[in-house]
Amino acid sequence: MYPEVFPRNAWYVAARSAEVGDGLLSRWILGDPVLLYRTEAGRPVAMVDRCIHRQMPLSLGRRKGDEIECGYHGLRYNTEGICTRVPGATAIPERVRVQVFPLYEEFGLVWIWPGQRDLADPGLIPDHHWYTDPGWATVSGTLHMNARAQLMNENLLDLSHLSFLHADSIGSPEVAEAPVAVRFDDRSVTVHREMPNSSCYPYLTRLTGIDEPIDRLQTAEFIAPSFGITTATSRPHADAGDARACRQKAMHGITPETRTSAHYFWSVSRDYAVDDDSATGYMAQALRTVILQDIAACEAIEHIIAAWEPSYPVELNIKVDAGPLQARRILERMIAAEQKMSDGDAPAWTGVSDAAARAAAQAWAKRNDSQSR
Amino acid sequence: MYPEVFPRNAWYVAARSAEVGDGLLSRWILGDPVLLYRTEAGRPVAMVDRCIHRQMPLSLGRRKGDEIECGYHGLRYNTEGICTRVPGATAIPERVRVQVFPLYEEFGLVWIWPGQRDLADPGLIPDHHWYTDPGWATVSGTLHMNARAQLMNENLLDLSHLSFLHADSIGSPEVAEAPVAVRFDDRSVTVHREMPNSSCYPYLTRLTGIDEPIDRLQTAEFIAPSFGITTATSRPHADAGDARACRQKAMHGITPETRTSAHYFWSVSRDYAVDDDSATGYMAQALRTVILQDIAACEAIEHIIAAWEPSYPVELNIKVDAGPLQARRILERMIAAEQKMSDGDAPAWTGVSDAAARAAAQAWAKRNDSQSR
Amino acid sequence: MYPEVFPRNAWYVAARSAEVGDGLLSRWILGDPVLLYRTEAGRPVAMVDRCIHRQMPLSLGRRKGDEIECGYHGLRYNTEGICTRVPGATAIPERVRVQVFPLYEEFGLVWIWPGQRDLADPGLIPDHHWYTDPGWATVSGTLHMNARAQLMNENLLDLSHLSFLHADSIGSPEVAEAPVAVRFDDRSVTVHREMPNSSCYPYLTRLTGIDEPIDRLQTAEFIAPSFGITTATSRPHADAGDARACRQKAMHGITPETRTSAHYFWSVSRDYAVDDDSATGYMAQALRTVILQDIAACEAIEHIIAAWEPSYPVELNIKVDAGPLQARRILERMIAAEQKMSDGDAPAWTGVSDAAARAAAQAWAKRNDSQSR
Repeated sequence: MYPEVFPRNAWYVAARSAEVGDGLLSRWILGDPVLLYRTEAGRPVAMVDRCIHRQMPLSLGRRKGDEIECGYHGLRYNTEGICTRVPGATAIPERVRVQVFPLYEEFGLVWIWPGQRDLADPGLIPDHHWYTDPGWATVSGTLHMNARAQLMNENLLDLSHLSFLHADSIGSPEVAEAPVAVRFDDRSVTVHREMPNSSCYPYLTRLTGIDEPIDRLQTAEFIAPSFGITTATSRPHADAGDARACRQKAMHGITPETRTSAHYFWSVSRDYAVDDDSATGYMAQALRTVILQDIAACEAIEHIIAAWEPSYPVELNIKVDAGPLQARRILERMIAAEQKMSDGDAPAWTGVSDAAARAAAQAWAKRNDSQSR
Repeated sequence: MYPEVFPRNAWYVAARSAEVGDGLLSRWILGDPVLLYRTEAGRPVAMVDRCIHRQMPLSLGRRKGDEIECGYHGLRYNTEGICTRVPGATAIPERVRVQVFPLYEEFGLVWIWPGQRDLADPGLIPDHHWYTDPGWATVSGTLHMNARAQLMNENLLDLSHLSFLHADSIGSPEVAEAPVAVRFDDRSVTVHREMPNSSCYPYLTRLTGIDEPIDRLQTAEFIAPSFGITTATSRPHADAGDARACRQKAMHGITPETRTSAHYFWSVSRDYAVDDDSATGYMAQALRTVILQDIAACEAIEHIIAAWEPSYPVELNIKVDAGPLQARRILERMIAAEQKMSDGDAPAWTGVSDAAARAAAQAWAKRNDSQSR
Repeated sequence: MYPEVFPRNAWYVAARSAEVGDGLLSRWILGDPVLLYRTEAGRPVAMVDRCIHRQMPLSLGRRKGDEIECGYHGLRYNTEGICTRVPGATAIPERVRVQVFPLYEEFGLVWIWPGQRDLADPGLIPDHHWYTDPGWATVSGTLHMNARAQLMNENLLDLSHLSFLHADSIGSPEVAEAPVAVRFDDRSVTVHREMPNSSCYPYLTRLTGIDEPIDRLQTAEFIAPSFGITTATSRPHADAGDARACRQKAMHGITPETRTSAHYFWSVSRDYAVDDDSATGYMAQALRTVILQDIAACEAIEHIIAAWEPSYPVELNIKVDAGPLQARRILERMIAAEQKMSDGDAPAWTGVSDAAARAAAQAWAKRNDSQSR
């Protein structure tokens, strides 16, 4: 039911910009170990976190300027992944290298393209400029979950769960009952609901003092393969104008780590009371709790699914699942297209796919091998 | 060697009555997640602990009177497992439901029938009335073991182990040497040994002060598929009458959790010094220790077996194994009969088998699916 | 790439002599549970740590003189593994037994031969007499690693890693750059490097006060299937004679526990300042740290390899790998020869291979089985 793999020819959030610095950050992404760091000039770099010599994670090595020296036998790689030094060796074919992943940094996020390098078009990255816009007050964080990414993507597309899982904060009974309008295209799904004259929810009251019926709009957007944006507007129903309208935009980078685990890069931004630090403090704590509730739900479900594998328990689809089901179809089409492109080879969950680097290393390995006999 | 599955058309202990109350108790039984709770009228209910919508454990939801509301998207189920509410939906076909398991509560135990509902005959439940009989002083508990259930069933049928594993409490050297009489029928095995003029064992001395040769009778009964009763009588050998005779009856509900783990519902009742609370306190502590020794042995063996899987290390059968071997044969016959009934499909370790619920859900899912396209 | 199994017809270190005493020591070796203890006369004994009756680990039982009594049902085994008592039984066929492994104790190590008994030739055990020679000051220990044994064997044959992994103790930059001379035969590989007028390394300075350029010789020897000896000589370059020459010999028994874990029995001996206890104390601490760094590297690599299984990530071989690659070839040849001997059956990772004991037990089991029906 859920996709077994994720498309590789796509952008995923690799990190929030603040996470990538001088140090060597190791993070598994789509089944690959990835080393992330920032050059002295400030450019983020991502390469396979695995020395081509004896599989040592490069993140356990050290920086030599912008280069990385393996902590085991000292092979050194530049920011292109090209091996620049093999201790005890003289000539090193330029082709000997580790795979480097295209990165694109914009508005506070570092995006990674795990697939074919020449297809990496930054134009495909969804807009999220408000994340670093001073006109918004933003809270954010990075979390991890032991559940497959798609469970969270679908959580975010079916916000009827607010009425139950988050009843004590951002939920009210009306959310689950409001009809939804679903729109979709090749790459995205949008689920919209309007709740005029609806009861106020605890989080809004705590944040703004509003404690009266509100008009509430909510849009959840899924941008394939694994990114979400949720937009919410709440306005006192009795107000004539927008003076007390509260807008909030949340961002959800759900990056598969392995088949059954994921990183969750999250942020929520508000455009009201932007300078109120106390409100921001409450918001950070309250929304982190909300996300931890979502993660707990996905992990509980993953535990159930695991017991049924390799088959999958029957599930019932209801009206609000129209959005999540469209998201699955988009993913299925993307994966099928990739498989066709690679002549039927499924994108592997593990194993780096840079065929050129692989072949070069094999060729050189063979040569060395015969020399050392 | 050991059965790979357990029969589903049979009664197993699901809980001690005291464990089932207002709260939502989650317990895996024969590979299924099961939710247990008690209605306001006091009737215990068991249903699959998994919402048919998106696999959320229902035990993470909440009660609405006697109904259960899923904590994720708010689907509600009555005590028959029938879905009574889908937020945002109007009509709900009655067939949409989660599987409910037949339960039978008697003398302090809640029994569950994981199989075909119409075969659930309470007359098959073994007698254990002394468990709640005030004429007996009873201690009891619930434990868990990381070992397949059958290891404990066989432990209980070969009490020669008392002389070694429990030498410091309920064992004496005579137990292992005494010849056994084995009787069996289609559903049960009884192993009986008599030890006239035998040395007293530490537990009896501590409990009664008796410290002289005794006549000891011991009967271990296995009632398929996974329940045991052990009865012991100890009487000073020198006594003419039964004035100081001590009778004890123990009950062992060994309910498979998964293929390699089990719940252990235990109790021991005595008919002497019934009002002596200090004796009861000692008994509770001493016998819990005995059972933890049994569990440790089974877990050590499970660890060995795991290293040999999928094959099984050769084992040597000796005289005292006559009982355990008969128990295996009864189980094999029960399983074969079930497999024949289901046209050769082995009862699955995981996966709920209520075919009707499954088909109904699939049908409805398909309909919703096509609507939401 | 790495061997999937290890030869069984070979000597492995089972324990340091000091580890084997009155107590019952359980240790898995090549996938078998092994019980180790010492007879009252002081002879070490190794038998499969698993009662032939119901798979109970014998190490959970107790000694009866030199015999072992199973802690479950009391079967007793002598030092030949022959069952001498079955409680409740009269005659016990002599063939009923658990497998006993040939052991050989010499110079502080207990060696085990997991294979065919009649091939166990102590002459094949590599010399390591200095381990207990009072002319040397020795430090030693036993460690465990969650990585396949061959990763450590290869670590020890490619000492270029000293310049990187152990730069703060026994490494200097020259090690990785020095050319190596590789020699090998059917059973061993030797990698030798000479580093005249080389920088001194922190460990030597701390131990001897030498803080000037040195001549350094280093020899790493692999003795199949899984034992290493590393010899090092350091001498001030300016010295005319050998007055300040420092020799060190290290021993590395890398005994596979399972396919992906190993025991590491290590020692390092020095022939200088032999009576300086403070130096010995520093040496013990510093070299344990060095070995823990090696183990951490191997475990990090094992983690990477695990993600690629069942395939194996491409690796690049460089000049210094000539030694490790020869070691692999020796192992491949040994394994192929064993497989040929056993008509193509691969030596199993789990499962005791003493065919005679197995058949005898099966025969008896069958007989008992039919009697008890």
